[in-house]
Amino acid sequence: MSSEAIIEHRRGVGGGLAFVVCGPSGAGKNSVIERVMEVIPGFSYSVSFTTRPRRSDEVDGRDYHFITDKQFTELVENDEVVEHVTYLGHKYGTSRAQIKEVFAEGKDVILNIDVNGAKKLMDRGLNDFSIVYVFLTPSSLEILGTRLRERGTETEKQMQARLAVAAKEMKSMPLFEYLVINDDLDTAVDELRAIVVAERCRIIAAND
Amino acid sequence: MSSEAIIEHRRGVGGGLAFVVCGPSGAGKNSVIERVMEVIPGFSYSVSFTTRPRRSDEVDGRDYHFITDKQFTELVENDEVVEHVTYLGHKYGTSRAQIKEVFAEGKDVILNIDVNGAKKLMDRGLNDFSIVYVFLTPSSLEILGTRLRERGTETEKQMQARLAVAAKEMKSMPLFEYLVINDDLDTAVDELRAIVVAERCRIIAAND
Repeated sequence: MSSEAIIEHRRGVGGGLAFVVCGPSGAGKNSVIERVMEVIPGFSYSVSFTTRPRRSDEVDGRDYHFITDKQFTELVENDEVVEHVTYLGHKYGTSRAQIKEVFAEGKDVILNIDVNGAKKLMDRGLNDFSIVYVFLTPSSLEILGTRLRERGTETEKQMQARLAVAAKEMKSMPLFEYLVINDDLDTAVDELRAIVVAERCRIIAAND
Repeated sequence: MSSEAIIEHRRGVGGGLAFVVCGPSGAGKNSVIERVMEVIPGFSYSVSFTTRPRRSDEVDGRDYHFITDKQFTELVENDEVVEHVTYLGHKYGTSRAQIKEVFAEGKDVILNIDVNGAKKLMDRGLNDFSIVYVFLTPSSLEILGTRLRERGTETEKQMQARLAVAAKEMKSMPLFEYLVINDDLDTAVDELRAIVVAERCRIIAAND
């Protein structure tokens, strides 16, 4: 058995793994994902489309592709998004072309999507590619509320709406494979990184 | 949903996870396991029984419990080992009492056992406890041979016997869940550690 033959038993060879990271708004998904991508090679981040207005600390093309309602509708009609959801009146979607591009480069991808978007992916899958479903949240809604308040980008009413959605999203947690607790950023980064390293070590079953 | 309710969705609460680490003799299982236990809390190592003679660098009760054939037979008859195998004329077995003790303390356990022992565990399970199966090996039999030669504790004939067993064991790899490549100790330690951290983050499915 040659060297290559041994290593080829692992799933994490040549990309094609999609890590879906979900969790309530304010959980810190973007911060954790950014840090994990800094410490692990072989990743591209899939930037989602959204019709929501850009926040002052956000960069177009880095945090989201900010597009119009009309543009979004066209993407959906042309099947150019693998999942899309409406959240608090704004639309969010994941680019199919971008994921294909990442996989073709032999890399893995992290998708930061909404819980409802993740559920759609669970139903539809992503062709031949493996998807790992991660739920990321602080350990309580109280901590989440404090974070949203500290961010200070929204009215109290908008924040209450986000917390109500969050409480509902928590109920979907048992559908996911992994739970990362983000009370402390370093710990959460270590946990998500571990999930990625472990999944790349996973052995491809004989019947895969 | 309270703080406790969120964290309780993770499997790695209160111990009860058994990590079975298998791989050919000379793969470096003991070195990797020792280092992982140094960097991760919440672990106890299950020391196996064996009838094989102690090597000069081994400590009784740390590396193995070195016992006689008669003592070993009694343990098996009293169902005091969860699995036992014969390897190159010597017997090896895992203490049931010790695993129960570790789990009762709310800890996880790492079992360094033979591939055939692991297969028996796959068939029988470990009561209500979850077992994670990890295969650990250098990326080629050539590297394995070099290591066995460097250890210099055996004759060339004994070494050839070990390599023949190793080649056979490699064929069981697809039965395992994870593959850790130990060409570089630091990388192998990081991979096994990641598997442990990730498995502790795993969400208990609704129907578990």
